[in-house]
Amino acid sequence: MAKIPHRLYLTEDQMPKQWYNLRADMKEQPDPLIHPGTLAPLPEDALYPIFCEKLAHQEVDGKTRYFDVPEQVQDMYKMYRPSPLCRAYNLEKALDTPAKIYYKFEGNNTSGSHKLNSAIAQAYYAKEQGLKGLTTETGAGQWGTALSEACSYYGLDLKVYMVKVSYEQKPYRKAVMQTFGASVTPSPSDTTEAGRAILAHDPLTTGSLGCAISEAVEAATTTEGYRYVLGSVLNQVLLHQSIIGLESKQAMEILGEYPDIVIGCAGGGSNLGGLIAPFMQDKLLGKADPRILAVEPASCPSFTRGRYAYDFCDTGHVTPLARMYTLGNGFIPASNHAGGLRYHGMSPILSKLYHDGYMEATAVKQTDVFDAAVQFAKLETILPAPESSHAIRAAIDEALKCKESGEAKTILFGLTGTGYFDMAAYEAYLAGTMQNHVPSDEELQGGFDTLPPQPAE
Amino acid sequence: MAKIPHRLYLTEDQMPKQWYNLRADMKEQPDPLIHPGTLAPLPEDALYPIFCEKLAHQEVDGKTRYFDVPEQVQDMYKMYRPSPLCRAYNLEKALDTPAKIYYKFEGNNTSGSHKLNSAIAQAYYAKEQGLKGLTTETGAGQWGTALSEACSYYGLDLKVYMVKVSYEQKPYRKAVMQTFGASVTPSPSDTTEAGRAILAHDPLTTGSLGCAISEAVEAATTTEGYRYVLGSVLNQVLLHQSIIGLESKQAMEILGEYPDIVIGCAGGGSNLGGLIAPFMQDKLLGKADPRILAVEPASCPSFTRGRYAYDFCDTGHVTPLARMYTLGNGFIPASNHAGGLRYHGMSPILSKLYHDGYMEATAVKQTDVFDAAVQFAKLETILPAPESSHAIRAAIDEALKCKESGEAKTILFGLTGTGYFDMAAYEAYLAGTMQNHVPSDEELQGGFDTLPPQPAE
Repeated sequence: MAKIPHRLYLTEDQMPKQWYNLRADMKEQPDPLIHPGTLAPLPEDALYPIFCEKLAHQEVDGKTRYFDVPEQVQDMYKMYRPSPLCRAYNLEKALDTPAKIYYKFEGNNTSGSHKLNSAIAQAYYAKEQGLKGLTTETGAGQWGTALSEACSYYGLDLKVYMVKVSYEQKPYRKAVMQTFGASVTPSPSDTTEAGRAILAHDPLTTGSLGCAISEAVEAATTTEGYRYVLGSVLNQVLLHQSIIGLESKQAMEILGEYPDIVIGCAGGGSNLGGLIAPFMQDKLLGKADPRILAVEPASCPSFTRGRYAYDFCDTGHVTPLARMYTLGNGFIPASNHAGGLRYHGMSPILSKLYHDGYMEATAVKQTDVFDAAVQFAKLETILPAPESSHAIRAAIDEALKCKESGEAKTILFGLTGTGYFDMAAYEAYLAGTMQNHVPSDEELQGGFDTLPPQPAE
Repeated sequence: MAKIPHRLYLTEDQMPKQWYNLRADMKEQPDPLIHPGTLAPLPEDALYPIFCEKLAHQEVDGKTRYFDVPEQVQDMYKMYRPSPLCRAYNLEKALDTPAKIYYKFEGNNTSGSHKLNSAIAQAYYAKEQGLKGLTTETGAGQWGTALSEACSYYGLDLKVYMVKVSYEQKPYRKAVMQTFGASVTPSPSDTTEAGRAILAHDPLTTGSLGCAISEAVEAATTTEGYRYVLGSVLNQVLLHQSIIGLESKQAMEILGEYPDIVIGCAGGGSNLGGLIAPFMQDKLLGKADPRILAVEPASCPSFTRGRYAYDFCDTGHVTPLARMYTLGNGFIPASNHAGGLRYHGMSPILSKLYHDGYMEATAVKQTDVFDAAVQFAKLETILPAPESSHAIRAAIDEALKCKESGEAKTILFGLTGTGYFDMAAYEAYLAGTMQNHVPSDEELQGGFDTLPPQPAE
């Protein structure tokens, strides 16, 4: 066995040509989307006004184990994939740990994150259906940037509703999206009924992902030839993101490795669900038993302190209900939270797996996250996104446990992206002015109070 | 022959283990650095107060053809190298050209550019010599970021003098450098004699690379255990950057390709000199005859409108004189110039090769550069740095000439980096407010008037 390289790139020929649908191997399926009025499960065609048809099908199909990656999607994947599997030699050495630390780095593309993997798929299917354009929301802007690139590539119009506070704090993210031809509107806006209602209720609101989703869904369903797309949470998104895990597993096989622990940051679950997919398959099929660890912000702790309940995916209540770990659709993380992963809910697939005991979750404070981010940047020369740094924090903690126990575990974590547009948060951290916020039980109760009536069991 | 992939990564084993010193194959050597008072050539040891010893040696050694890349430098190279050789299939298709377009992409690292290749080497040699720290200047910030990463990695202190206008316009670049532990001072500052003199003369100056070099050199030579490092122009920098060309040539050989035209943007010449090195070697040795094309901004046209003369490398006249194509050390590009490549002079090696007819140069206007940048971003999904986009512009123009002539030429250009910190310039371009400036002969004369007295021929 040759020395394991710092970065392993699969060749273009080795790239996965199918996505893996984790639901096909789950003993129990995640609960389906239901109608908020009737509480009845939504059949595929009820989703057609929101999602294009192929994506609606992927959303509800829990049986098909593998979906072919369309050739035109593979073509765009080849512009930035395969992404490298990296061995964190320097980090291991600095921690003086017997653990072997690997990370799958998804930041080497202009969107700066893994979000492009699903953006491409969603834009492609929309174009294939003959649609004119798409709408979406974006927070920090990685998803909006990814979708701007994909829409530009396939020739679709794109309207992005960007959370107002991010729109104002990250003007350059907006400029990147505009460079790729997208129109970007700060949310809430007066361009939709949902936006106007939210503004009437709270004229000074700085917005939230939940608000922006409401506006984007409304804009899609009221504009001819448009559909809505979402960058996380949904089953279809986890399907597309399985490419992260499939490539990781293949690369580790080439190296003769298999992870004892797989760690991913968790906001809506798109990266985590994609990264763990083939490893969770092994676990579900009894072929292997890796620990799977989700890492979320202590200020937005949907897994660790949320409820497993049906909830709206948005604040304006225009979406179906999904059963997931949720803090309530009215929950908004504290304003001093700079670490991303702000969504109130969690992927229904991951929620079900967590609920059934197939994975663990932990919540970390943001100053601890930025400690890890800066340590990692200096050692591994990549400035990580705050989101990704949640996983770095947990990977370091696990490696330090190995140092104590003397176990040479193999750790794999997802490095979802780069932090070049998050320097205001880094500055606050370096200046020592970054605060932590752990919501009190009362604050959380305020979120839970916004949960809709639940169906009878 | 299999289909040529979109991105070809050499393996870690295939990485070059030696840098190539172009001077060793030049029929006539570039002129040496000379003392500004005596006008006598500077021997290696006269450079020791400024550069660390190994680098001073590399600066003056025109004979050694290959220098070993130290193992510790190779280790850090492996964190982000080999960089991919990319085939621009989409650009070719959009241009409907029979030309094959390749680009070597150096932007997949946190510095966002090729600058890291020399930063690592320079920091390593400084550490090896037992120095405490380094000083340097930075304009747009890519070099400063690269050196911050390298100094952090090897454990050296770093003082960066950042051109004041960039310090104010690009606060996030500063934050990245600070994240890696560098101290960043806006230049001109009152911390050096050179800075104070420049401020006394023009209190409102927004600074220039030439001013910042003066301050950094002064700080290095007056601080115990410090030396100065420069990110371009110097012979040693071109040596380190030869890794770009060596990898490119090796990757093209694997693909069965050889470029008819090699195109690089040219500011101080570090990328261009590195990219063309092995191809220029073929040309010098009569093994092949590729066209070599330098692309510079019309607003800072040192090759195409400068003089081949001895000049200071800085504005404050603290450096030796170098014989190079120069606009005069007092030349400052128009304030509306946003495209980078602002240095008044040009690498002495490239200047000599250009003077002797081995390469061509062209100057392009910045709106034409941004036209190319946006077209490229949409097709190839990488948002390019303005600097890099000069090469894109020329590559597109050459490919369009091939369309007219029907020739299926093979074009290779250097994509030096990404534009994530240059969005203000993109915004101006998108808003239609970006202006071009082509200096008048009188303006250029003002620069030439700052040239020092020349030695007798």
